[in-house]
Amino acid sequence: MPPAAPTATSGEPAGAALEALRSVLDTAGFIDGTGPEAERYLHDWTGDYRGTGLAVLRPKSVEEVQALVRICAEHRVPIVPQGGNTGLVAGTIADGPPSVVVVSLERLNRIRGIDAVNFTLRADAGAVLQTLKDAAESEDMLFPLALGAQGSCQIGGNVATNAGGINVLRYGMTRDLVLGLEAVLPDGSLWQGMTGLRKDNRGYDLKQLLIGSEGTLGIVTGVELKLFPRPANVETAYLGLGSFADAMALFGMARRVCSDLLTAFEVIGSECIAFATLSNAQTRVPLAGEWPVHVLMELGCSSAIDGRALLEALLGEAFAASLLGDGTIAQSRAQARAFWAIREDLVEGQAKRGRHIRTDLSVRLSDVAPMIENARGYVLSNWPGWEPIAYGHAGDGNIHFNVMPPTGLSAGEVRERGTELLDGLYGIVHGFSGSFSAEHGVGRSRRAVYWKWLTPEQQKAAAAIKAAFDPLGIMNPGCLIPDR
Amino acid sequence: MPPAAPTATSGEPAGAALEALRSVLDTAGFIDGTGPEAERYLHDWTGDYRGTGLAVLRPKSVEEVQALVRICAEHRVPIVPQGGNTGLVAGTIADGPPSVVVVSLERLNRIRGIDAVNFTLRADAGAVLQTLKDAAESEDMLFPLALGAQGSCQIGGNVATNAGGINVLRYGMTRDLVLGLEAVLPDGSLWQGMTGLRKDNRGYDLKQLLIGSEGTLGIVTGVELKLFPRPANVETAYLGLGSFADAMALFGMARRVCSDLLTAFEVIGSECIAFATLSNAQTRVPLAGEWPVHVLMELGCSSAIDGRALLEALLGEAFAASLLGDGTIAQSRAQARAFWAIREDLVEGQAKRGRHIRTDLSVRLSDVAPMIENARGYVLSNWPGWEPIAYGHAGDGNIHFNVMPPTGLSAGEVRERGTELLDGLYGIVHGFSGSFSAEHGVGRSRRAVYWKWLTPEQQKAAAAIKAAFDPLGIMNPGCLIPDR
Repeated sequence: MPPAAPTATSGEPAGAALEALRSVLDTAGFIDGTGPEAERYLHDWTGDYRGTGLAVLRPKSVEEVQALVRICAEHRVPIVPQGGNTGLVAGTIADGPPSVVVVSLERLNRIRGIDAVNFTLRADAGAVLQTLKDAAESEDMLFPLALGAQGSCQIGGNVATNAGGINVLRYGMTRDLVLGLEAVLPDGSLWQGMTGLRKDNRGYDLKQLLIGSEGTLGIVTGVELKLFPRPANVETAYLGLGSFADAMALFGMARRVCSDLLTAFEVIGSECIAFATLSNAQTRVPLAGEWPVHVLMELGCSSAIDGRALLEALLGEAFAASLLGDGTIAQSRAQARAFWAIREDLVEGQAKRGRHIRTDLSVRLSDVAPMIENARGYVLSNWPGWEPIAYGHAGDGNIHFNVMPPTGLSAGEVRERGTELLDGLYGIVHGFSGSFSAEHGVGRSRRAVYWKWLTPEQQKAAAAIKAAFDPLGIMNPGCLIPDR
Repeated sequence: MPPAAPTATSGEPAGAALEALRSVLDTAGFIDGTGPEAERYLHDWTGDYRGTGLAVLRPKSVEEVQALVRICAEHRVPIVPQGGNTGLVAGTIADGPPSVVVVSLERLNRIRGIDAVNFTLRADAGAVLQTLKDAAESEDMLFPLALGAQGSCQIGGNVATNAGGINVLRYGMTRDLVLGLEAVLPDGSLWQGMTGLRKDNRGYDLKQLLIGSEGTLGIVTGVELKLFPRPANVETAYLGLGSFADAMALFGMARRVCSDLLTAFEVIGSECIAFATLSNAQTRVPLAGEWPVHVLMELGCSSAIDGRALLEALLGEAFAASLLGDGTIAQSRAQARAFWAIREDLVEGQAKRGRHIRTDLSVRLSDVAPMIENARGYVLSNWPGWEPIAYGHAGDGNIHFNVMPPTGLSAGEVRERGTELLDGLYGIVHGFSGSFSAEHGVGRSRRAVYWKWLTPEQQKAAAAIKAAFDPLGIMNPGCLIPDR
C-alpha cells in the first residue's frame, strides 16, 4: 500500500478562520469564494478544470503571507497557492471539498533590484515573467525563460513548477536559473535564501526541494535569478530532413560545430503543418520539396562572433554528411518571425481542431526517434481513425506527441477513449525510462499516473518529504501527492 | 535550542554485526579497522584529521552495498561512506566513538556506458574522475568537472559533495552535471533515478537532495553525467589590472564580448606570486610592470569560431575602457601551461610555507572587491604580523582568502589563534550574505559554524530532512548535522 501524505481535516467551522484571515488584509485583499470576482481564480485557463474555494486571499507583503499561513495552520484551513494560473495540470485548482483558500501572489509583484555586476535580478514571486524579461533587457541583459504564457505567468509559479520552454537547451530549466529563494513554510515561518551566490556548499540545498514542488511544501515569495548577456546576434534556420533520427544526429553535430551557442532546436513532423495552415492560411513552409521532418533552429551570440558563418558552416557539414535535405537561413528578423510563426500556429491549429490528446513526453535524446516511431505504430495499429502528430523541443528530448480523434466523436467519447489511449502512450514512454511530464508538472490531473509509476522507495521518499515539511497537510493538498 | 538530528545508539556488541557484514563480502572486501591496511581509509590526505572505524568494507556491487546497509540498519552500526577520501572538511573521517564502519566505493568503479547521441556517460560511484574524463575525451567529448584531486577523487564523492573546481563558470557545479542518480538509502532500499533525462518535472527532485548531502542521506552508487562537445580551440590570457573591482568589471565585459564561452576566470592578488616563486623559483609573470591584481582567463570554443580574435577583441575593448594594464595571450600550449603553473604553484607554495589559515569564501560578484578589501583591512588592522593573500575563481564569486601566520609561532599557537581569526573572516563574509563554504562543503570541521549561522527555520528544515531519510541516524553521523 502506498504511504499517503497527511491531509488537513477541517473539523472547525470556517467562519472564525475566515474572519481572522480577512483581518490581515485590506479590502481588495479578500475576495469571497462564492462571488463572481472569485471566478477567474477558481478555474484554469483551458476551461478543463473548475475548483472550489472559501475565499481568494491577495496579500501585498511577505509578512501578510506569513500571517495568513499561520492562521491557516492554526485553523487547519488548506491553502492553494496561485501564481498566474496558467498551468496545464490543475496544480492551482482544488478538487477536494470546498474548504480551501486560494492565496494569490499577484499583488506581491515588485522588482526588488538588478545587480549588473552579479548578473542577477531579484523580484517578488508575483512579478509577471514578461515584466522581468523587459527589465533585464532594459539593462542589456537577458532573462532567458521563454514560454507561451510569459505575458501572464508569474515567476513564483515558474519556480514552483520548474517551468521549461523554448530556451532550455542553452540556459536550462527554471531550476537552473534560480540563485536565491525566499519562501513561507507551512507553519508560517520564513525560509530566507536570497543569497545570489553562484557557489554555496553549505549543507542540504533546500531551495532545490521547493523548486518544482508545485506549492506543496511552501509558498515562494521571492527569487533571485541569473541573467545573461543578451545575444546581439541571432540567426534562425528552417530545415527539411529525412527522419527524426537524422534530426537528432544533426543536433549533435550542431552542438559541436556551434560550440553550444544554439538557443533552440525544435522538431516538427511534417504532418503538423496542416494544423499551422488551419490556424493561418498564409502558412508557407520555406523548403523546396517535401520533407518528413522539419527543424527550426536558432543560434544566439555576441556581435564579436559571426553567427551567420557558423550556421552556414554547420549546414555545409550536414549536407556533406547527407543529414540535411533542404534549408533556409532567415535573411531578416521578419523572416525569422515567419519561421517561428509556423511553430506557434501549429499549436493554435490543434486547439481550433477541438478536443484532442496532448502529451509532454521526454526521453533520452538517443530514444527520441525510436520513441516517436513506437508511439506512431501503436496509434496507427490500434486506434483506426486517430491521427498522431509529433513536434517539440528535440534538443531537450521533449516531444509533444499528440493525437487527434476521428471527427464525429462526442467530447465525452474523446475524453473516455483518450484516457485509454494516453495510458498506452505513457506505457511506451515508461518503457524508454522516459517521463510523462517533461515540463508541465504533475498537479492534480497527472497525480494518478505519477504515483502509479513511482517505485515504493520513491513513493516513501516523496511522502516523507511532504510529511516533514507539511505535517498538517495544509499546503496545496491533493496536488502531486495523493490524499490519504 | 537547535533541533538535533537522530544519532545511532550502539547498544549491541559489534561482533555479530561485523560477522554478518563480513559474510556479504569476499576476502578483499573486509578490512579490519585495527590493522595497517585500514590506515589510509581512517585519516584524511592533509593529515589534519584521524578517525576511527571498526572495519573498512569494500563492496563490489550495488547489491552488496544494499546488503551491508541493511545489516548496519538492523544492528544500528553507523556508516561512513567514502569515495577517494580527498575532501578537506573531514566529511569521511568519523570523529565519534569507534563504532562506525567505513564503506569504501573504490571497487564499484565500472564505466557503465557512453551515449554519444544523448551526450551522457553512466558510471559506478567509485569510478575515478580522471578515468571518466579520459573516457569522454576518447569519444571526442568533454566531462568538464576539473579539480586538483581529479586523479584520485571518485565521481560518487564529487556528487555527494557537489564538487566545484576550475570550470564551474561555464559548466556549473557537479549538481549541474548530474542527469541521473542511483543511491542506496539508509534502510538499504535502492533509489533508482538513472534516467538521463534533460527535462523531467515529475514531483520532488530527490536527486537534488542527495547531491551535496555529504553521505548523510544515503550512499550514491551510480550516476549519469552530462557530456559536452570538446572545445577544439582553447585560448589563454594572463592579464594585469589595477584592482579587484576592475577585474570584476572585466569579467562582465568578457561574458558579453565572448558570448559566455569563457571556461575560467581566475584572479590572483599580486602578493600570491611570492608563493608561486617559493614553490617554483622559475616562476616568471608574463606582464610588463607591477600590477596589484592578475587575471588568468581561458576561453574554449569549436574550431569554427576564431577564439583568438574573440579574445583580442575583448582585450582591445578592455584597454579602451582603461580596465586593463597589461596582458599576454598564450602563443602555444606550452605558454598556456606556464600561465596555469603560476596558479597551481601558488597553492603549493603556501603548503611549503607551513600551517596557515585557509578559506573558501563566496559572495555575490558585486561584493568580491569590497569583501576582499574589508577582510584585508580586518587582518592588517587587528592581526599584526599576519599576512593576507587573496586569489580564486572570481567568475563564480569564490575567493580563497588565506592568511599566513607570523614566522616563529608554534603549530598549536597557529591553530588556536587561527580559529579566532577565521571567526572574524567568517563574520565578514556573513555580513555580505556570503558563504563560508563555496565548494569544500561542511563535513565535520565546519559543522559548528554551519549550524551557528543557520536560521532556526533552516536548522529545523535540515534536521527534518535528515530525520525523514535516516530515522536511525546511521548515515555518516556527525557530518553536517550536529549529533544529538
